[in-house]
Amino acid sequence: MRVETLCTGDELLTGLTADTNSRFFQTLLLDRCGLTVRRSTVVGDVRGDLIEVLDTLAARCDVVLVSGGLGPTTDDLTIECAAEASGVGLVEDERVLEHIRARFAKRGIALTPNNARQARVPVGAEAVLNAEGSAPLIIQRRGACTFFFVPGVPREYRHLVATFVLPRLEAMVARAGVTRLRILKTMGVPESHLDEKMRPLLPRHPKVTFGYRTHAPENHLKLLATAPDDAAARQLVEAAEADARAVLGDTVFGVDDETLAQVLGRALLARGWTMGVAESCTGGLISAACTDVSGASGWFVGGAATYAVSAKTTWAKVPAALVDTHGVVSAEVAEAMAVGVREVLGTACGLSTTGYAGPTGGDEKNPVGTVYLGVATPAGVTVERHVFGGDRERVRSFAAATALDALRRRLAVSEDTVSQMVDPKQQPKKK
Amino acid sequence: MRVETLCTGDELLTGLTADTNSRFFQTLLLDRCGLTVRRSTVVGDVRGDLIEVLDTLAARCDVVLVSGGLGPTTDDLTIECAAEASGVGLVEDERVLEHIRARFAKRGIALTPNNARQARVPVGAEAVLNAEGSAPLIIQRRGACTFFFVPGVPREYRHLVATFVLPRLEAMVARAGVTRLRILKTMGVPESHLDEKMRPLLPRHPKVTFGYRTHAPENHLKLLATAPDDAAARQLVEAAEADARAVLGDTVFGVDDETLAQVLGRALLARGWTMGVAESCTGGLISAACTDVSGASGWFVGGAATYAVSAKTTWAKVPAALVDTHGVVSAEVAEAMAVGVREVLGTACGLSTTGYAGPTGGDEKNPVGTVYLGVATPAGVTVERHVFGGDRERVRSFAAATALDALRRRLAVSEDTVSQMVDPKQQPKKK
Repeated sequence: MRVETLCTGDELLTGLTADTNSRFFQTLLLDRCGLTVRRSTVVGDVRGDLIEVLDTLAARCDVVLVSGGLGPTTDDLTIECAAEASGVGLVEDERVLEHIRARFAKRGIALTPNNARQARVPVGAEAVLNAEGSAPLIIQRRGACTFFFVPGVPREYRHLVATFVLPRLEAMVARAGVTRLRILKTMGVPESHLDEKMRPLLPRHPKVTFGYRTHAPENHLKLLATAPDDAAARQLVEAAEADARAVLGDTVFGVDDETLAQVLGRALLARGWTMGVAESCTGGLISAACTDVSGASGWFVGGAATYAVSAKTTWAKVPAALVDTHGVVSAEVAEAMAVGVREVLGTACGLSTTGYAGPTGGDEKNPVGTVYLGVATPAGVTVERHVFGGDRERVRSFAAATALDALRRRLAVSEDTVSQMVDPKQQPKKK
Repeated sequence: MRVETLCTGDELLTGLTADTNSRFFQTLLLDRCGLTVRRSTVVGDVRGDLIEVLDTLAARCDVVLVSGGLGPTTDDLTIECAAEASGVGLVEDERVLEHIRARFAKRGIALTPNNARQARVPVGAEAVLNAEGSAPLIIQRRGACTFFFVPGVPREYRHLVATFVLPRLEAMVARAGVTRLRILKTMGVPESHLDEKMRPLLPRHPKVTFGYRTHAPENHLKLLATAPDDAAARQLVEAAEADARAVLGDTVFGVDDETLAQVLGRALLARGWTMGVAESCTGGLISAACTDVSGASGWFVGGAATYAVSAKTTWAKVPAALVDTHGVVSAEVAEAMAVGVREVLGTACGLSTTGYAGPTGGDEKNPVGTVYLGVATPAGVTVERHVFGGDRERVRSFAAATALDALRRRLAVSEDTVSQMVDPKQQPKKK
């Protein structure tokens, strides 16, 4: 089955916007259908180009996923061109129009005449309502080729691709047997090391495909097995997972779609513990990751982005003299922040970051990329020093993930010890 | 001049690797040559596909930038296919071989026979030595089309494209026209309304292309013009920009690659003002956006993700009784948070959010998606109520951006008034 993708939009050809959608589809297609996209094309919002490409793709593909150009404005040409290329007219779909009307009414926004453009469907094509937006998914057959037209807005694209396009493709693929996928997510293991560590296991799991994916700073191991039935596929994957876990130990923080913050939250909840954060260089990223988890209020009390020194003293009770003596980027300040925020909020755990995210700042001892992480629990406080490479964004995201992981590992290792030492429900005492 | 790009490599079609190279070239091409890539194609390491695409591109393009498949291994097929497609043989380039030998000698690594593969050049093509790696840039003419073959390794790609490819292209386009692009970024204008508002302007700017892009919750207007020289192109775009700004007013928050937080930071810096944040449902997103800006320490003092009620009372001095009386998601609490954080940190401005991000929570009066935003400045405090649709992630990101924009608009509108009312350098007094 030959599958290709077509992305439309001038902004994808002028360096303004990165296409983040295609990887989402490619990954799902491989994981759920065992298929690879054969070719991928990007064209601008140019009528002649669009029609020519649609014709070419119709002639050589079984399936084409087309994204973008489904908006309400005059430079959104995809559906018009799809109709023109296949020699049919456009018809207004009353169901889609009603869906758009209802969305606008709910938001109290007036419907403009061009919004009705999004309800036009090529004659003979199928429109699937889009719970995340106005433009529907449009499915059009041209000879042996099936076109799926989806909006380019990432949220809408992901929703429609995962919910409607993939199930259709799964049904279309005549696969022998059932495929199972397990993803083991690791922190602190470089991708090449992951590969090295897994190599000795391969001969023992000849029917399992070992794959690697980088989602910096995480690295993921993908275990894929196809078997005649689900139980057999599951067994193959589970045996490989057990062996992989024995090698990787606690660097594996979660599986499949779990996030680091979710796993950490679950570990805290299991103990009836709570946490607070004081972050300097990460400036809110740790708090944002924690509160991204639905139900975070059960374990996340609060986080302070203590950017200025005054915020550190006000919110995390860091003594100003400590900053003067050791400098704001120091083990001492990281420790005081973690201990301070734990005390101020009365949480079981405190987490802190202070460092130089760049591009300016840093000194000989602590160059740009240096980050101190403080981890305070009822068992005491520890500080880690890391030096991350790359630009400001990379240093910040690596520091935030590494901090969350430091607390996760701390909880995993010290589970029994800590529980015996201190009643976590008690107000933590001064260190 | 028709320019297209071709990226090769299986890893670009399986979701494993993102193509970060193309944006680099696209941006340079637009900035330095005023040209836009017409179409972009990705193919896997499949001989038949590669040859077919090279032939198609040779027939319709003036310039093609091909990246990837120049390595030493047997799945690196690009140069072989380039020779085969154009019906010529391969010849070993002694200069390139010497360059590779020297690189290996310097590192004390033995040259393997397959490294010599990288010294093979299609007969008649030009090889340019690569200071960053082994594989040379290869320039091949086929009829009216010039192919530039560069390695896919980002460091080598960037070096060769910036140093050799772009200067050649600049020389080639010296006689053609120049394109200029301007992006106006708006908040609070739905994409379809943007189109409606711009339509009356189109007849007055026939040489300017008006385009629209959604980067939720922002919507962007793209103004693109091509003219014989840079000054003329710039003039066309500037005239359209002035007209567009007259219509869009203060919904335009920035241009080109500016972010909302950058613009807000600049507005604060211009007044010598600072800000603090107390966020509940956005849980750190506002702080993270602010501290993402390099130099944020000049205007961002701190932000508290006051998730639990206890964090609101501790860090933003919100009276517990106020929460009891009005509920945590209320205008009163939003106001108290904005005023409180401003007072606690001694900043000129305070910004706050409290709401139901979902999927659970909410009540009849304030359903999931309801967010109250508090904006405190030396001139006083205001509260906005919004109801955002979509999932938890969307509600959070819309609320964070809308809050930043609320403060931005407040500063823009009240600039003169506020400056006269209060000395912003003074410690703000209790409301």
